[in-house]
Amino acid sequence: MATIVLYSMNRSAQTTARLCFFPYSTRASIVDSRISFFHNTSVRRLTPLPGARWVPKATGARFMSNGTAGNTATGRTRRGALLVAGAVVGFVASASHFQRAEMATMIPKTEETKISEKCKKFMSPPCTDVKVLQQKKEEMCTRMEMLIMETQAEFCRALEEVDGGKFKVDKWERKEGGGGISCVLQDGKVFEKAGVNVSVVFGNLTEEAAKQMRSRGKVLKGKDGILPFCAMGVSSVIHPKNPHIPTVHFNYRYFEIEEEDGTKQWWFGGGTDLTPTYVNKEDGAHFHNSLKEACEKHHPKYYPDFKKWCDRYFYIRHRGETRGIGGIFFDDLDSPSQEEAFSFVRSCAQTVVPCYLPIVYKHLNDPFSPEEKDWQQVRRGRYVEFNLVYDRGVKFGLATPGSRIESILMSLPLTAKWEYMHEPPKGSQEADTLEVLRNPKEWV
Amino acid sequence: MATIVLYSMNRSAQTTARLCFFPYSTRASIVDSRISFFHNTSVRRLTPLPGARWVPKATGARFMSNGTAGNTATGRTRRGALLVAGAVVGFVASASHFQRAEMATMIPKTEETKISEKCKKFMSPPCTDVKVLQQKKEEMCTRMEMLIMETQAEFCRALEEVDGGKFKVDKWERKEGGGGISCVLQDGKVFEKAGVNVSVVFGNLTEEAAKQMRSRGKVLKGKDGILPFCAMGVSSVIHPKNPHIPTVHFNYRYFEIEEEDGTKQWWFGGGTDLTPTYVNKEDGAHFHNSLKEACEKHHPKYYPDFKKWCDRYFYIRHRGETRGIGGIFFDDLDSPSQEEAFSFVRSCAQTVVPCYLPIVYKHLNDPFSPEEKDWQQVRRGRYVEFNLVYDRGVKFGLATPGSRIESILMSLPLTAKWEYMHEPPKGSQEADTLEVLRNPKEWV
Repeated sequence: MATIVLYSMNRSAQTTARLCFFPYSTRASIVDSRISFFHNTSVRRLTPLPGARWVPKATGARFMSNGTAGNTATGRTRRGALLVAGAVVGFVASASHFQRAEMATMIPKTEETKISEKCKKFMSPPCTDVKVLQQKKEEMCTRMEMLIMETQAEFCRALEEVDGGKFKVDKWERKEGGGGISCVLQDGKVFEKAGVNVSVVFGNLTEEAAKQMRSRGKVLKGKDGILPFCAMGVSSVIHPKNPHIPTVHFNYRYFEIEEEDGTKQWWFGGGTDLTPTYVNKEDGAHFHNSLKEACEKHHPKYYPDFKKWCDRYFYIRHRGETRGIGGIFFDDLDSPSQEEAFSFVRSCAQTVVPCYLPIVYKHLNDPFSPEEKDWQQVRRGRYVEFNLVYDRGVKFGLATPGSRIESILMSLPLTAKWEYMHEPPKGSQEADTLEVLRNPKEWV
Repeated sequence: MATIVLYSMNRSAQTTARLCFFPYSTRASIVDSRISFFHNTSVRRLTPLPGARWVPKATGARFMSNGTAGNTATGRTRRGALLVAGAVVGFVASASHFQRAEMATMIPKTEETKISEKCKKFMSPPCTDVKVLQQKKEEMCTRMEMLIMETQAEFCRALEEVDGGKFKVDKWERKEGGGGISCVLQDGKVFEKAGVNVSVVFGNLTEEAAKQMRSRGKVLKGKDGILPFCAMGVSSVIHPKNPHIPTVHFNYRYFEIEEEDGTKQWWFGGGTDLTPTYVNKEDGAHFHNSLKEACEKHHPKYYPDFKKWCDRYFYIRHRGETRGIGGIFFDDLDSPSQEEAFSFVRSCAQTVVPCYLPIVYKHLNDPFSPEEKDWQQVRRGRYVEFNLVYDRGVKFGLATPGSRIESILMSLPLTAKWEYMHEPPKGSQEADTLEVLRNPKEWV
């Protein structure tokens, strides 16, 4: 990947940003589709110049300086053009962290693009053969597999961008049927451990197992008690090094089960949630607002309902505290129609980068003390407790023969700590964070 | 605590050992009872001189040097006397690590000693009022509470001895009935985290809960479905800093449940097991031999049966490996008689110090590399996985309202690590250790 340097003026200081060639031949259409994506979204303020071939991505320390974060969230945008290496590029001065991160990470959302073309952008060839995907391109299983692969690629590229490191990509097969693609970036410059996992599995379920897969426990009737099923999803946990950059988790999944009479039962599940070491109001508001916007395109009740569900789900009962500041969580979504449910899930998946990356950029160079690092490690311990003791996905995975343990436990942090009787002093920032975790609040 | 220095000759080098005044006024009788303890135990070779008032404890770096470990396990014993600070003390040259550790840690085992006298040696006043214990001194609940308190004190003192640090002692009450004493030494010189916990709880169980408490799930009939119960135990997990010193865990417990007709159901459970970062044959043999000897005083089948039970119990199913190299584990022990079962449990509890401390002393000054420390942290991660995913005690504790979470999770290490796809290179010491964990072996 070639890099060129762009100089721009910031209100406070001259700053440095890097521009990278986008590594795909489909880049031109990507930028075009990105423009329409910006225009479709109420909060977007940046429009790259028509015909731009590169995407500005800011990773320089000074450019990412802490000082401009608070007042640039609604910052003005200036546009310019700079001839570098024979190409016209757009650049931005005083762009907010949120805007800048968005610019770096868009990939096309048009479903018309040929499947084989889209697959070239993925972290690995998809689990299902490309020819099969082409043949069955109208089917929900195909559309969902494409979405989770796109989401994985989009998120991984955005993280590689900010970290400078590369994801290790493992494609694996499940001997009982299906497989997955695990992408892990470990001990990077920004991320302690970043895992983005896709899995597409199929086979036969017993009626009892099928019942357990739905949180509402609906009874399904199989032919001779056996139900062919297909389950797929993308899931990710990102643990940054800097205690001022929060951990994020998301997971979007789809299930399909064939009943005795051949009818297919299907449902979606998923969510995105944030786990800060230190609660930051602005970050929390940005994160929840992004999710709320995604939800509101589909149903006014989605955000308030799924926000509450998230707080309930990510609850460490024995500690009496939530894992983080939540986000959204839903399961068993099978209404109003398959098309509309998929469209909602796609909106959520496409919100992962814009809800998280701006927060990463904002805190990229925040200084931190050994005590703050220590508090992060204690919170990491709580993360481990939740994942191993309560998380339904982890428990289901560990108990399922043939599941890939390393992919399931990818969600655990690289390092964690358990201090006996750790209780932050009253009035400290750590105590303030605990207070929020003990009494979930409204963010929007 | 006053310290005096004793010089003795070692075959390889002049070495330094420290002698400490025992901080209790009952010290004279303690030493006397220790002599009879030595004579009663076949493997003991050291007999302190009659009238000795101090106990030699070796903590000097040179004295504990690695080189003498292998050939001194069966080393000859020379005796001598040295007048220091007006007192006669015994000292040992070329004493094995195992013998030296024993010398440091004996406390009296005679049940005749007055309860109030014994209580003075405990880490804290016992959970039950001393007057109540005096009144009911013949009852098994009292005898067991005294045993677990003694075990806690004996083990904590031995660990303080080697570490140089002091246990933090927390006495806590359970509002539903009973309480406990948690002793934790965190971030010491030798121990990363050492927890020794006693709990004595009582109250009423439903028939369903009572059934769950026994691993054999025996049905118990209560008055109006309610069964008064009493449960008590001592449990401990010690995580040392040096990766060549293994982690140890033990737990000895007693249950009593009163049925509808007033008859009391009772049973014992417990075990001691070792989790090395690097498997060491000599340590494994010493550890298992010590447990085997304790078992064989009571039943020839105990060691082989409880050794197998231990390997089965401490199994991390999703990894296909045991947590460590095992030891013994048993539950629901209610035969051949209450007296004999208690006597067996007492033998096991009294074996905790001699089976573990010599291993600590032996490796006290082993050098280690960052890579070895890293492997320790990865194994610590596995320890957390077992404890949070499988351990019945932890699961029961976390799910029980009113239980003290900090005491239950005291077993978690101070620090742990999860590296994605960690697999040691073939032929490495780490791979050898994994091989043993994947295929439990016989140690005696």
